[in-house]
Amino acid sequence: MEQQKKILCVGLVCLDIINVVNKYPEEDTDSRCLSQRWQRGGNASNSCTVLSLLGAPCAFMGSLSAGPVANFILEDFQKYCIDVSLLSEHPQCFLPASMVISNTSTGSRTILHMNRNLPDVTAEDFSKVHLHQFKWIHWEGRNAEEQVKMIQQVERYNSMLPQQQKITISVEIEKTREPLYQLFPHGDVVFVSKDVARDFGFESAEAALKGLYSRVKQGAILICAWAEKGADALGPDGVIIHSDAFPPESLVDTLGAGDTFNAAVIYTLSKGGSLQDALTFGCRVAGRKCGFHGYDSISKVFDDMQPQSLF
Amino acid sequence: MEQQKKILCVGLVCLDIINVVNKYPEEDTDSRCLSQRWQRGGNASNSCTVLSLLGAPCAFMGSLSAGPVANFILEDFQKYCIDVSLLSEHPQCFLPASMVISNTSTGSRTILHMNRNLPDVTAEDFSKVHLHQFKWIHWEGRNAEEQVKMIQQVERYNSMLPQQQKITISVEIEKTREPLYQLFPHGDVVFVSKDVARDFGFESAEAALKGLYSRVKQGAILICAWAEKGADALGPDGVIIHSDAFPPESLVDTLGAGDTFNAAVIYTLSKGGSLQDALTFGCRVAGRKCGFHGYDSISKVFDDMQPQSLF
Repeated sequence: MEQQKKILCVGLVCLDIINVVNKYPEEDTDSRCLSQRWQRGGNASNSCTVLSLLGAPCAFMGSLSAGPVANFILEDFQKYCIDVSLLSEHPQCFLPASMVISNTSTGSRTILHMNRNLPDVTAEDFSKVHLHQFKWIHWEGRNAEEQVKMIQQVERYNSMLPQQQKITISVEIEKTREPLYQLFPHGDVVFVSKDVARDFGFESAEAALKGLYSRVKQGAILICAWAEKGADALGPDGVIIHSDAFPPESLVDTLGAGDTFNAAVIYTLSKGGSLQDALTFGCRVAGRKCGFHGYDSISKVFDDMQPQSLF
Repeated sequence: MEQQKKILCVGLVCLDIINVVNKYPEEDTDSRCLSQRWQRGGNASNSCTVLSLLGAPCAFMGSLSAGPVANFILEDFQKYCIDVSLLSEHPQCFLPASMVISNTSTGSRTILHMNRNLPDVTAEDFSKVHLHQFKWIHWEGRNAEEQVKMIQQVERYNSMLPQQQKITISVEIEKTREPLYQLFPHGDVVFVSKDVARDFGFESAEAALKGLYSRVKQGAILICAWAEKGADALGPDGVIIHSDAFPPESLVDTLGAGDTFNAAVIYTLSKGGSLQDALTFGCRVAGRKCGFHGYDSISKVFDDMQPQSLF
């Protein structure tokens, strides 16, 4: 039964329209893309895609508008067998797209975000979730105050269960926004980004972990990925674990690499893998992902990447 | 009965995603739009919108993919009561979006086009059209060789009818592409753009009309709009007609201003208005249009703009 339990990711889903060019467009000109693709985006939504491709049953919780973009998003979730029963639809809202200009000559990616008028998931929405379906719940840090309340609901639920049936709680603190920092003491696993580490004045993953570990709760794992330098993790034993990055032969698409890392780490830990296994697997899958567009090829290269200790 | 006949526009429909910013995004940065809107675009499709808002029954002929964007486009055509029975659907094709970055600080608009893999309308497609429904057919110059064959079909049809029942043929030569220039001798009304005029080495609308008039067929009207300098026209009597531009109090949105001009000219001429009326009305409606986003307000400001001679 435990094996059938799902991983739930709570956070954002949006539409990314990726325009591939070989020269960044100058202002007030007309130019032509080499190609264009539409992709379901958003950190939690991307992590679900990767979890699903890795073979882990998962669900997404977030809000969605109605209309043609929402239909595209829903169909894409379904294509990846991601449970969307916890999606809340807001028919009166408009789901805008993030424009990405991906320059093949320089590898740069320029992103034009759009504020959504969609309300984030609330603690009240979350109170209706049947928690027994899940073995792990991951929050992409957004409306942190509400998210803390959701986590407290899971903690209350966990307090009534034996250790092996408790839901593992992870949080991602990616954006350098002060209110998100209240999430540090609320995860069993806390992902902190390079941007946030730097915002605190740290210039390496190791320094960030040592400096920020006092903020996490007792027994928690703090993880910090640092692009081409790989990723580090620190658990309650005080030992810093490291994995190098696994860069692809040629860098094709780094969009969503962080979300891929998080998913691969959660996947390994949720299967009972070690922290070192999780970190290495995270770096391997994320590195491979940068070598192709989108995520689909993750499942193709998966077999030779799995940490042997899991099988 | 004649009054019920429609105006048909043959050409492109696409999706424009308009991102409003107050600073043009630098390469490799993340920034936020002030607003974003989705708009059905394409010259012939825009001209239909304006014709419909002016109260002229009209139809669009072009090709469309299937999928969420196509649904958005179809719904939008229907919202404006544009007859889409001549749309050909290509379920296997993907309809990409043109990205527009509209900078409110400088008024610049940067457009990132995408090649569509949709086939243009062919002469064979066109041969199935019941021509008796139309009093005017307008071609946006694209696949000119096929378009000449379509026009010849209309000419054959016209040759069997009395003068007042003939279909008026107009063509738009907007892009500076050599093959489009074969359209010059095929319209009763020919719209030539400032870009094309300049491509031929002309630096004013008047010079362009005088220089290019030898290319149009006997009796035809050649029209050239020149942005803030208004528009000029030349007919078989050899007299250059001019209208000044009517700039709005503040420039808000110039996207589709040319398509608006064409539609307002076609509207006036198809109602029997004079060339001067058509030109002035074209400049007035296009000028007003630049003062608001999109097209909807055209119908609101319409009453005080109509050439009195039509009523």
